[in-house]
This record gives sequence, C-alpha cells and structure tokens, in this order.
Amino acid sequence: MKNLGYYNGKYDEIENMYIPMNDRVCYFGDGCYDATYSRNHIIYNLDEHIDRFYNSAALLRIEIPHTKDEMKAILKEILSKMDDGDCFVYWQATRGTGIRNHAFPDDGSKANIWITFKPCKTQPIDTKLKMITLEDTRFLHCNIKTLNLLPSVIATQKAKEAGCDETIFHRHGRVTECAHSNIHIIKDNILVTAPTDHLILPGIARANLIKMCKKLGYGVDETEYTLDDLMNADEVILSSSGSFCIQVVEVDGKKVGGKAPEMLKNLQDALVKDFMDATDK
Amino acid sequence: MKNLGYYNGKYDEIENMYIPMNDRVCYFGDGCYDATYSRNHIIYNLDEHIDRFYNSAALLRIEIPHTKDEMKAILKEILSKMDDGDCFVYWQATRGTGIRNHAFPDDGSKANIWITFKPCKTQPIDTKLKMITLEDTRFLHCNIKTLNLLPSVIATQKAKEAGCDETIFHRHGRVTECAHSNIHIIKDNILVTAPTDHLILPGIARANLIKMCKKLGYGVDETEYTLDDLMNADEVILSSSGSFCIQVVEVDGKKVGGKAPEMLKNLQDALVKDFMDATDK
Repeated sequence: MKNLGYYNGKYDEIENMYIPMNDRVCYFGDGCYDATYSRNHIIYNLDEHIDRFYNSAALLRIEIPHTKDEMKAILKEILSKMDDGDCFVYWQATRGTGIRNHAFPDDGSKANIWITFKPCKTQPIDTKLKMITLEDTRFLHCNIKTLNLLPSVIATQKAKEAGCDETIFHRHGRVTECAHSNIHIIKDNILVTAPTDHLILPGIARANLIKMCKKLGYGVDETEYTLDDLMNADEVILSSSGSFCIQVVEVDGKKVGGKAPEMLKNLQDALVKDFMDATDK
Repeated sequence: MKNLGYYNGKYDEIENMYIPMNDRVCYFGDGCYDATYSRNHIIYNLDEHIDRFYNSAALLRIEIPHTKDEMKAILKEILSKMDDGDCFVYWQATRGTGIRNHAFPDDGSKANIWITFKPCKTQPIDTKLKMITLEDTRFLHCNIKTLNLLPSVIATQKAKEAGCDETIFHRHGRVTECAHSNIHIIKDNILVTAPTDHLILPGIARANLIKMCKKLGYGVDETEYTLDDLMNADEVILSSSGSFCIQVVEVDGKKVGGKAPEMLKNLQDALVKDFMDATDK
C-alpha cells in the first residue's frame, strides 16, 4: 500500500479509513501517541518509543488493550503491508468511544488503537535550520505526548509563515523545547539541555544525543538555560526522531552558533551511523 | 431521531456516524466548539453562542464555511429531526482533512462542521453542588473554546471519584473557573467573578448572571479572587449553559456559602424565567 491507516484491527489506505464520531478524540483530544521512523521496514528505537507510549498512557490513565510485545508485533506486521519500507511510523491510543461526557467512560471500555504509516525519510543531517521564538503558553503536562496539540499547530504555522522551519518555545526567557522537537546548545564542548520535567517531552532523539555525547567524551549538563544563552551558544542543535541532530543557524533573523563544528559533526556522524546500522537489511 | 450526529451535511444517529481518519481533530484536537440547550426545539441564547463560536474560530484562524445566519439555520433545521425537543445542542469546527502535518493544510480547505444533539434537560435550579479544587495547569488560551480538553477530562474524573460534581481550578490560589463551568462568589450583596482574560472562558451563562445582577440592582465586581475568598464567601455560585446559577455547598469537604439565600434565590428565579420565556412554544 502507498500509505496505511489502522483502527482497532481494520486497515486500508488512510483516505479510505473512517472512525466513529464518538471516539473521544473527536471532542477532547483524549489520547496519546508516539512516532518514529523506519528504514527497510525496520522500525528505529521501537522499544524506547513503546515504553514512552505506555508511560504517556499510564499518566493519562488510558488502558492500552495490548501488551507492549503485542503492540510491537502489530506495528511490525502492519508495516510489512507498505510498499515503501522507509516510513514515518505513527500510532496513538484514544480513551474509548461513547456519547460526549468529560468523565471517563464508565463501561470499562479500553482504548482505541490507531496506526498510520506514510513514506518518509529522515531529514538530511547537513540541513541548516532557521527558527522563530514564541512565549510558551502550553499546559504544564508537556512530558506527556498527548493529542492536545493546538499550540504546537499554531506555532508551526507561524514559523512557516515567517519562512522558518520550527519554533523555539520559552517561558519568560527560559528555553523549553520546540513545537515538535527538542532544542539544545553546545557551550565550551558541553551539551546543555533543559531537564526532563513537566515542561518538555523526554525526547528519544534527545536521549540518544546525550548517550552519544557521553560515549564520545563530551560533557552533558541537563539544566535550565535562557534565550540569551542560546543566542550566544557555540552551537544550537535541534533533535527529533526524524532529524537526530540538526544545526540551527538562525533565530529570529539573527545568526547563531557555528563555533563548534567539529563536536557537531562528530555527534551527527555517530547518530546517523547508529540509525543506519540499526535499520540495515 | 433519538439522538443525532451531523458531519458536513450528512447526518444520522450518532452511533452510525463515521468521520475521516484524517480529520485534523484526530491528531491535534485542532478545532473549536460551542454548546447550549434547547427546549421545545427552540435553542436558547443561540445568537450569543454563535458569536462566541465564530470568535473562537477567528482566534484559531479556522475559517467556517458558513455565514452565522447559515450556521443558525442549519442548527435549527437539523434540530427539527429530533423526537425530543429538549436537547444538549453541540457543534464544532475542525481545521480540515489531510495527512498529519502540524502546519495548516495549504490547499485552502475550509473547516469541517460537526453537530450533535442528545436529549437532555437543564439542571434543576435547586441542585446543591460539592466541589474539589485543583491547581490549574491548563494552557493560557482558556478564553478559546477549543477541543484541547484533556486537563478538563482528568479534572472531571477526579471530581467524580471524590463523589463530587465539579472541580474548581486555581492558579497558585487565584480562582479561575471550573472544568466545564464558571464559578463566582457573592460577598456583601456583590457578585464577584474572575475577569474575562485568557484564564477563563467568557461564559454566556456568566454574562446572563451579570446582566441579571445589574437588572435586579446587585453590584458586580469582575476581579481576581482567591480560594480563601471563596471559602469565606456569602454564597458560591456555579454557572454554565445547562445550569444557569447553582449553589455550591461544599468545597474539599468543607461547608461554604449559605449566607445570602435571598439574593441567590432572586437570581435563580430570574434566570430560570428568562430561559422558560425564551423557549416557550
């Protein structure tokens, strides 16, 4: 298939798929998701993404009707139906189906399981990104990968209209993350990145970046940092499951980074190699 | 029909209605809504709710494919299909349909229009409510009636599990609103209610309550107030489109209010009369 949508065991090309009007996603965005990339029909970092998915669900008290192993098996089996093995691999769980009512369904109904695949390749590692900044007005549950994403939608659109690639959120000057990526800086050969509290998503690519820094002998400082720190950093780095470790070269029209090219290149090469090795046929 | 679901011109009983998997509500909660009650197939305060709906859409930059008059005509026509004329009248707009992508669809596609009706009566005006309190961790766009409602879902479920009716949100002690209602206090014959900034929804029932206070000669003070103020108020009042003006008698297990029964009764009687007159056959 050219793309694929799956809902509770049924699947077809996404455009042919329909879901019940009373799925709770329709009225409350009542669900959580996770996503990664595949190459050669092999899903990258699947264990890590599945663990985070079940953690999001647990924090929202959504009961997934499959074990982690079953969920991984379903993803792998359904991915095999795709013509193209290089995909954006996306799945979500929503809190059941029923007449609109804020409280959880009291019939003990379990979550609805959704999967979508579309052909997609990870971002070229030598991409250079331009960013805008926006006050972070999101809720205080950004550690949970929920379907309440309106502020990220609006922020992404604003970046696009400014001719930029992404939006850096900050709370009164303290940098949190981007609309759909994490953001980090390099200063004096140390990777500085916001701690994984309720203000940011604990990115899998962020965890990979930290692990790689340690492996290569670079220091890592998980701490709060500001927009000023970012504007004066040696490098500014964006990470996400589809981009690994991409250089940011411009923020709000001003040049940033470019002062630690060797460390940046070493991290990029190592992270791309990890992806290529893990998804080799 | 016993209940009704409408989507872009098609309608049926809700349980028989299906929507495209790529409606943007499914991935982002990317939409806004409004809701009120009908009696005798007459929709109460329809103009006010339609005005607020279009304002929510404008703030989210969602383009409604109908004029306000067309939207009102559709709601009235579809409501006439209901067997029971006493309904919860709900409608929403979502930002189009397309493969998941945070940025707005760039094909210029307009919003999808949803309507649901279910038989429902307004809450008996002599109901006494018990509440819990919760830190308000929602985003800073609560003035927009969006479909990003996960914190309200969780808060409502917590109230239910505590044997209570609703949750009072506060930001570090400053009372904002409830999970799906506004909240007010009476002190010294004055109605005190949080101002309509980005922290609360500008309730239509709240506006009615203010209007009625002024008509009956009671003072109104739109200002910040705290949980302490609320615990020591003469009365604590909840308002929503389905409840007008209901007495809160207990908050976090402690008795509140009960010290201005005459003013409360005068407001309740006047608000119920307004609803009954407006929806008389």
